[in-house]
Amino acid sequence: MGRLTEDANGVYIIALTPFTDTGALDLESTDRMVDFYLERGATGLTVLGMMGEAQKLTTDESQVYVRRILKRVNGRVPVVAGVSSTGFASMKTLTDMVMEDGAAGVMIAPPATLRNDQQIVNYYQQAADFLGDVPFVLQDFPLVTSVTIPVSVIQAIIDQVPTCVCLKHEDWPGLAKITALRKTANEHGKRHISILCGNGGLFLPEEMARGADGAMTGFAYPEMMRDVVHLHREGDAAQAQNIFDAYLPLARYEQQPGLGLSIRKYVMAKRGAITSSTLRKPGTILSKDDVSEIERLIERQTKRLLELGQ
Amino acid sequence: MGRLTEDANGVYIIALTPFTDTGALDLESTDRMVDFYLERGATGLTVLGMMGEAQKLTTDESQVYVRRILKRVNGRVPVVAGVSSTGFASMKTLTDMVMEDGAAGVMIAPPATLRNDQQIVNYYQQAADFLGDVPFVLQDFPLVTSVTIPVSVIQAIIDQVPTCVCLKHEDWPGLAKITALRKTANEHGKRHISILCGNGGLFLPEEMARGADGAMTGFAYPEMMRDVVHLHREGDAAQAQNIFDAYLPLARYEQQPGLGLSIRKYVMAKRGAITSSTLRKPGTILSKDDVSEIERLIERQTKRLLELGQ
Amino acid sequence: MGRLTEDANGVYIIALTPFTDTGALDLESTDRMVDFYLERGATGLTVLGMMGEAQKLTTDESQVYVRRILKRVNGRVPVVAGVSSTGFASMKTLTDMVMEDGAAGVMIAPPATLRNDQQIVNYYQQAADFLGDVPFVLQDFPLVTSVTIPVSVIQAIIDQVPTCVCLKHEDWPGLAKITALRKTANEHGKRHISILCGNGGLFLPEEMARGADGAMTGFAYPEMMRDVVHLHREGDAAQAQNIFDAYLPLARYEQQPGLGLSIRKYVMAKRGAITSSTLRKPGTILSKDDVSEIERLIERQTKRLLELGQ
Amino acid sequence: MGRLTEDANGVYIIALTPFTDTGALDLESTDRMVDFYLERGATGLTVLGMMGEAQKLTTDESQVYVRRILKRVNGRVPVVAGVSSTGFASMKTLTDMVMEDGAAGVMIAPPATLRNDQQIVNYYQQAADFLGDVPFVLQDFPLVTSVTIPVSVIQAIIDQVPTCVCLKHEDWPGLAKITALRKTANEHGKRHISILCGNGGLFLPEEMARGADGAMTGFAYPEMMRDVVHLHREGDAAQAQNIFDAYLPLARYEQQPGLGLSIRKYVMAKRGAITSSTLRKPGTILSKDDVSEIERLIERQTKRLLELGQ
Repeated sequence: MGRLTEDANGVYIIALTPFTDTGALDLESTDRMVDFYLERGATGLTVLGMMGEAQKLTTDESQVYVRRILKRVNGRVPVVAGVSSTGFASMKTLTDMVMEDGAAGVMIAPPATLRNDQQIVNYYQQAADFLGDVPFVLQDFPLVTSVTIPVSVIQAIIDQVPTCVCLKHEDWPGLAKITALRKTANEHGKRHISILCGNGGLFLPEEMARGADGAMTGFAYPEMMRDVVHLHREGDAAQAQNIFDAYLPLARYEQQPGLGLSIRKYVMAKRGAITSSTLRKPGTILSKDDVSEIERLIERQTKRLLELGQ
Repeated sequence: MGRLTEDANGVYIIALTPFTDTGALDLESTDRMVDFYLERGATGLTVLGMMGEAQKLTTDESQVYVRRILKRVNGRVPVVAGVSSTGFASMKTLTDMVMEDGAAGVMIAPPATLRNDQQIVNYYQQAADFLGDVPFVLQDFPLVTSVTIPVSVIQAIIDQVPTCVCLKHEDWPGLAKITALRKTANEHGKRHISILCGNGGLFLPEEMARGADGAMTGFAYPEMMRDVVHLHREGDAAQAQNIFDAYLPLARYEQQPGLGLSIRKYVMAKRGAITSSTLRKPGTILSKDDVSEIERLIERQTKRLLELGQ
Repeated sequence: MGRLTEDANGVYIIALTPFTDTGALDLESTDRMVDFYLERGATGLTVLGMMGEAQKLTTDESQVYVRRILKRVNGRVPVVAGVSSTGFASMKTLTDMVMEDGAAGVMIAPPATLRNDQQIVNYYQQAADFLGDVPFVLQDFPLVTSVTIPVSVIQAIIDQVPTCVCLKHEDWPGLAKITALRKTANEHGKRHISILCGNGGLFLPEEMARGADGAMTGFAYPEMMRDVVHLHREGDAAQAQNIFDAYLPLARYEQQPGLGLSIRKYVMAKRGAITSSTLRKPGTILSKDDVSEIERLIERQTKRLLELGQ
Repeated sequence: MGRLTEDANGVYIIALTPFTDTGALDLESTDRMVDFYLERGATGLTVLGMMGEAQKLTTDESQVYVRRILKRVNGRVPVVAGVSSTGFASMKTLTDMVMEDGAAGVMIAPPATLRNDQQIVNYYQQAADFLGDVPFVLQDFPLVTSVTIPVSVIQAIIDQVPTCVCLKHEDWPGLAKITALRKTANEHGKRHISILCGNGGLFLPEEMARGADGAMTGFAYPEMMRDVVHLHREGDAAQAQNIFDAYLPLARYEQQPGLGLSIRKYVMAKRGAITSSTLRKPGTILSKDDVSEIERLIERQTKRLLELGQ
């Protein structure tokens, strides 16, 4: 598989990291999960992301896990690895490791210490200098990073840092950002980069209409994102929204900060994609009420999809 | 109308503050808006809340506005006024003013400077001391206030501050909080206070199932909240969820931070509840794309509700 | 007295708000405090600042207090009033009130909600539009406001907002900001505005050497700031530093966030400038240990100043 | 050398990480720096701290550096290593590595995501569970971590987590915390743990008087901390303060957030303790003005110490 480019599109799933009930890496489930994602339309995978419990892995575990993913994917789709770190040295160590092993690119979120426009631009310039000729995804997720990146700063990074090939868009609200970035590229002949959207797909129909290239996020039903992206490209926005609406009650429920990952793992285990829904500590645990709410939402969702002929 | 009590329930709408196109208070629209809310099932009104642009009003304007609301309501439902302030002196001035004019109680959000459990308890004790015998709503909205209030602290305030009669619940995620508070009250014989939920109603079916007494939030279709609360009480959770699901795509869209108030005012103006959708400066302005997305969501919502026989 | 201009210099003391032991405004002490400040070299006063417990005053009390200050000052020095507010409407109400009563200008801190460069510039443009022809001080105090204002943004405000005549400089570290602003003004022929420094005077010698025009801050010994500013202008940096060093142990002690105001009021009461050291609630109370540490530092300071012939 | 215990006292210097001009680890300087610290009274060293640029080292570099330190120290004093991490897995990897290599204990700062009392206690319990029988220092540094830890929470950790043997105290203001912790231990027979203070030693005389056991911080003149701690123990608080006052102007200057490390490295290079003052990127660079201010402060400090007979 080649390197990540400005043409990235479709659905890049933020992959889980499966653990056994006792918290060990579950590599057998990792294989199964990869197949699950690819069978449901993933056009790329993103590993070691925030929702991948990356921060709970040792460096050695990260390598074992990423290698397993890459081996199973076997070049069918590009794999992007999150390498955000408090220091450039460890970011580079991790980047070199995953690129050597066959990743297509890396993803970098801004550290919370950045506090104004110029600092953000400088940070990405320095990071790019450190990483050399490695394509990267700029992650714009203020709710978690506490760093607000205005359109002018994203555009400055696009202009000044050629290895920035993709925006993981998850500002909230963020629709106007897509419109502004596309407008600037069109009117001023700026470089077009890939925009893949996050936030669990909760605004995917609108994001596609505004000019996004797809999604880069997680949701226990990747087929929702596959269908919404596909139908939008086919020009059938109405059916895209019908599908979306059917999944929305559960997608909304899964988008609860902190709790969301437990919900996603529960559903993924229920669907057979992974063996255990265990989060490595520290992690939230679902209550009986949570589980019965999830089960109820899935039941209703299944029924609604049937009505839609899905 | 009497004072706010621990029995508050139903739908307390967070009322808008209508302005004319030039940013002046629009008192004629204020009357119309009150009627609009009450006709659609409001069992209470909350004024001068965060989504009411309270912070853009002078003290005199606040009084004029609240008096107009109270006059129009004319005792039909209780009116709660937001009095959060950086200082107790101005909080008390505002409280005395609105209570004198006929409000049923006040609402207090914690200042962002509170940084641990004891500070939060102390703050509410001191505030209650200042305000004297005035029932108040504790607003728990960490996304905006930056203050996380654990269940133990809410319970301590319930135990130690008798004038705290209601929790405006909008932590996210927050379902477990409702369950924990109800469990503590039941098992340990603690005082039961009213729990009214926020976040635009986005989790209202689950919140009612967990033991909430209703909603205290805004949404341009108050009838959604009325129906969900009502049907839950009637025991028809399935139909409650059907109604909820029909409104969810728009409710999700309206829940965009910052932008949400513009969306709500646009829809309220479209529905004839207020004359102008203008926000007082500084405020966001909807783009052409925003408007067409709203219109499309409303159209689909209307169709879906018809299918449900609504 | 005229209006605040770009030529403001010397020592603008951030005035206390004196209360009686029971928390009522102490107007008699207010008179005494004004005299105390002016006798010790204040070239201006700033009232209703963060350290003036402004947020604990009602609007009526603010007016009574500011009028009393203005009456006692009686045109001898300019008086600036803090008018920072969550909304422009109440900011304008307060501004009109104090300017009508004779203030020379106002001071505006950025609200914590501002999150990038353009938002900060917009905010000050809108505020200036609202306030009309009223000179204002831009308060740059990230430790408290959480808003970082880079040099480029301060310069943009200087360029675009003619009523911005003074910077209250209290970024930490902030020395490079003074150097950069002065350099830009000199090399590019930009408008020169007054730079008055905060942080309790803890970096005043270096700030004066970098091009500041004086101080706008509080410290229970205003004569320290008077002497440092004066000696720097006379070209005697060495003696300025001698004086500064003698006061530094206490200045450092007074600069403890939160606790600092209690310390300052204690010393001011001890020096006879105000009657009671009481802070209005909520406010910290000094412990016996705090008091004995203060007393010890004052004793040593007095001795050291004697050795310096002061 | 044994393990860190509740009896830790004196001066634990937060060690720099020396780099060459090109940003490589400078192991020769590391040796020299160790000798420099020990000759000036260090009773312990803390490595991989926030001011040690730990976050800029790869895991391999961290090991090389810590081993070099331990080899040079050769058991003369205990060495503590900072192991704060976003995940327990990497925290444990690093801890096992340094303890295996001969460290006496580790230091753990709370992650910024902790948002209430119980979460903080849980975090330290879980961390301690993960690390097993390894003594650790609880770092309380809200200015940088954004986590406020009240006295009740520190006491709960002392009560519930026996491997917590030391508090790195750098809340600001924080004097009352020392008094409260010592009082609780004395009156209620609680376990006494070591309290070593930070913040560049800026409150060291008062901290010693309140019951601290010493300092754990950096300053380019460790002899200041050695003397203040020593003289306090000898009962000569007056001379301790004389020494302190002589160093205070520079200590204040070095305590500028962000810039401080560049200042410290500059002075350490000037004193011959390390070869290059280079910070690894990203790091601030001193201006000509900064350097001349430092030189001037050192010159005055030397003169003042001579007057004191030092």
